[in-house]
Amino acid sequence: MIKAALSVLLVLVAMSSAKYIPKSGKRIPQTLSRGWGDQLIWAQTYEEALYWARSRNKPLMVLFHLEDCPHSLELRKVFSEDNGIQRMLDEEFIVLNLMYETTDKHLSPDGQYVPRIIFVDPTMTVRADIVGRYSNRMYAYEPLDIKLFKSNMEKAKKLLKSEL
Amino acid sequence: MIKAALSVLLVLVAMSSAKYIPKSGKRIPQTLSRGWGDQLIWAQTYEEALYWARSRNKPLMVLFHLEDCPHSLELRKVFSEDNGIQRMLDEEFIVLNLMYETTDKHLSPDGQYVPRIIFVDPTMTVRADIVGRYSNRMYAYEPLDIKLFKSNMEKAKKLLKSEL
Repeated sequence: MIKAALSVLLVLVAMSSAKYIPKSGKRIPQTLSRGWGDQLIWAQTYEEALYWARSRNKPLMVLFHLEDCPHSLELRKVFSEDNGIQRMLDEEFIVLNLMYETTDKHLSPDGQYVPRIIFVDPTMTVRADIVGRYSNRMYAYEPLDIKLFKSNMEKAKKLLKSEL
Repeated sequence: MIKAALSVLLVLVAMSSAKYIPKSGKRIPQTLSRGWGDQLIWAQTYEEALYWARSRNKPLMVLFHLEDCPHSLELRKVFSEDNGIQRMLDEEFIVLNLMYETTDKHLSPDGQYVPRIIFVDPTMTVRADIVGRYSNRMYAYEPLDIKLFKSNMEKAKKLLKSEL
């Protein structure tokens, strides 16, 4: 009798603590990295990223991409597997990746396209001078441009006049 | 000899595919849910959330919170463990949680504080009429307000004039 009551109790406890599972099956929680570097601390919004950049006096990298864009996916593979890039981003940059445009037009100096990588100085100045190889899409990079991208990271690390 | 060469090759392969690990140790990838519902599909930005709300004709819930705020954490526990809320959000709402304010002042009708939950109609109208129990912080909820919160979700589901 006590045993039966205990069983009922256990079932009740199990039921009440059962987590919600969608009809379509359990999902893997979405991550902020979206495949661009699981070990990096990604900002969630541009406002947050700017705040971090200012307060920590580090340059900000804003990366626009889409998961159904083959150019984004090709770049992502090279980008996420390059330990030099990942280490430099982790230690010396504030990072933000977005699958959506912001309302700030300074982040699309020559239009909205993906993949597109814009650096922002901790003084909140968009570094429109740090560009890739393509005159029609100045902030785009392809997998073969990874060396150029690294030298652009070095440029971004040379801060504009810092506010004291 | 061949065995030794193979070993070297294996080591080289292992080295080249080693993932970047920060000095402070391996991190758990950040998730977009931030503990408010791992099974939900969270929008990353307000712009993205508004686009989804419009295109799918679903109300949007915007939740402001902070990880070092005890009121946020208390609400999060109740909120994330309530299967009714999780199911309704998953099936009938667009969801966004933010640890940072946006530039849109409509999302802070009576100031910026956390936790704060604002509903937005798919017509892009902030439902400033859907409020909680506290006159000084109209969009705040405490764990004991979860029933009121559910009835507010029902209110938000009754859409304003929908655009055809």
